[in-house]
Amino acid sequence: MRIAIAQCTPHHANKQENLNMITRYLHRAKEQKAELVIFPELVLTGYSIGNQLETIAEEIDGPSLQFIQQACHELQIFALISFPEKNGNAYHISSALIQDDGSIAGVYRKTHLFSAEAHYFTAGNEWPVFTTKLGNIGVMICYDLEFPEVTRLLRLNGADMVLVNTANMEPYERYQHIYMQSRAMENEIPLVICNRLGQEDNLKFFGHSMAVNHEGDILLQLDSEEALRIVDVSLHETRDPELNYARRLHESVRGALLNCLHHE
Amino acid sequence: MRIAIAQCTPHHANKQENLNMITRYLHRAKEQKAELVIFPELVLTGYSIGNQLETIAEEIDGPSLQFIQQACHELQIFALISFPEKNGNAYHISSALIQDDGSIAGVYRKTHLFSAEAHYFTAGNEWPVFTTKLGNIGVMICYDLEFPEVTRLLRLNGADMVLVNTANMEPYERYQHIYMQSRAMENEIPLVICNRLGQEDNLKFFGHSMAVNHEGDILLQLDSEEALRIVDVSLHETRDPELNYARRLHESVRGALLNCLHHE
Repeated sequence: MRIAIAQCTPHHANKQENLNMITRYLHRAKEQKAELVIFPELVLTGYSIGNQLETIAEEIDGPSLQFIQQACHELQIFALISFPEKNGNAYHISSALIQDDGSIAGVYRKTHLFSAEAHYFTAGNEWPVFTTKLGNIGVMICYDLEFPEVTRLLRLNGADMVLVNTANMEPYERYQHIYMQSRAMENEIPLVICNRLGQEDNLKFFGHSMAVNHEGDILLQLDSEEALRIVDVSLHETRDPELNYARRLHESVRGALLNCLHHE
Repeated sequence: MRIAIAQCTPHHANKQENLNMITRYLHRAKEQKAELVIFPELVLTGYSIGNQLETIAEEIDGPSLQFIQQACHELQIFALISFPEKNGNAYHISSALIQDDGSIAGVYRKTHLFSAEAHYFTAGNEWPVFTTKLGNIGVMICYDLEFPEVTRLLRLNGADMVLVNTANMEPYERYQHIYMQSRAMENEIPLVICNRLGQEDNLKFFGHSMAVNHEGDILLQLDSEEALRIVDVSLHETRDPELNYARRLHESVRGALLNCLHHE
């Protein structure tokens, strides 16, 4: 699968500017024959928008996603877009996987909220995997990567790869690097992460977006520059038959995690 | 805690030679003021002893452990000794934590059996943590390290640190390195691993024993030489208040894992 990583700086609390930016990246990605573009966490609004959720958050069928769906349809390209989701009286940090026909394959709601996020947002309770013509894709968001259980749940739920939107800040560079490799290796699937750049208040986001294969080999790693970068990721490489972690996980533990998946 | 890592080559199927070797390492560790010595997986017998279990395995109160308990008592030192355990009609790959008064703090039975091990051994079903005057110590064995759930279960069960006996072979060097750091970081506890050297049949064991602190910093890393090396590991460093993984793990997942601990 040819993936474009859009390592960018979202405009803070300016959806129109971000929609313009997203559209530009989608065009550039299409020119480079990418099939899917991954953007950072909360690319639609920027990160520190907790106080503005009533006016800035949107429902899944809100105008911003519809605008991007239209662009994806016209360009025939997939996009993973993270946005603040209004869901009844609750708000989530969510990511929608938009397909090249403009439809939404599914939405993931961040299950692990970092630091002050829990003051504003409600954590998700599900680890869905989206069946698409590109493969079975799991999604997680930022702090989720730091809990090995999240990637495992997605793997047990059938993911062939995992995409990660993040707004990871200094000083957690090494955590992102190690966890990306470990999650890929211990689940024997590739992962791609897009981390944002820029600064909001005292938070400095470091980028370092990357792609790793199912053995944790680094296929692509960015520094801290604004960039659209292309990486080819294979979802069906031969696995080491001696490892087979998802199958050999202790049956009581595997059963317990599967219960989490099927619990509503 | 001052730990000695005894990176050695067990004598294949020769318990008497291994008891002599273990005793020599215990003396050398005591001279260097170590409080605990960690040995590799199946240090009592060597690794490929599946066909000889009826004659080589011992019960927890068997003569070999008793001999080492006596040595630990005389030297006033702890030792983590891995051995093939006879348990009724079953055999386990086990590790006994022997205390400096000669008593056994507890025994861990490997819960994830690698490759052909399952032909000979029965997997354990428990993730105990041993309360000692040195701290609350969890133990895992080799392939267990590759499943993040094992370290997590030990952490949720109260471990302040985790010790790993292993017989890890080429070509899994990078897996050991990455997993050691990831397990420490994602549980915010130090880990120490002792991997063996030498060759049995086509298996070449690479050593690379190491100690990492609760942030995944490498405190000590060996190459592939026979050695007794000392490392000071602090069990109660200040944790990053923003991370707090064991507490912030999604409640449904945390509950499921706690059920695994209390099951049976």
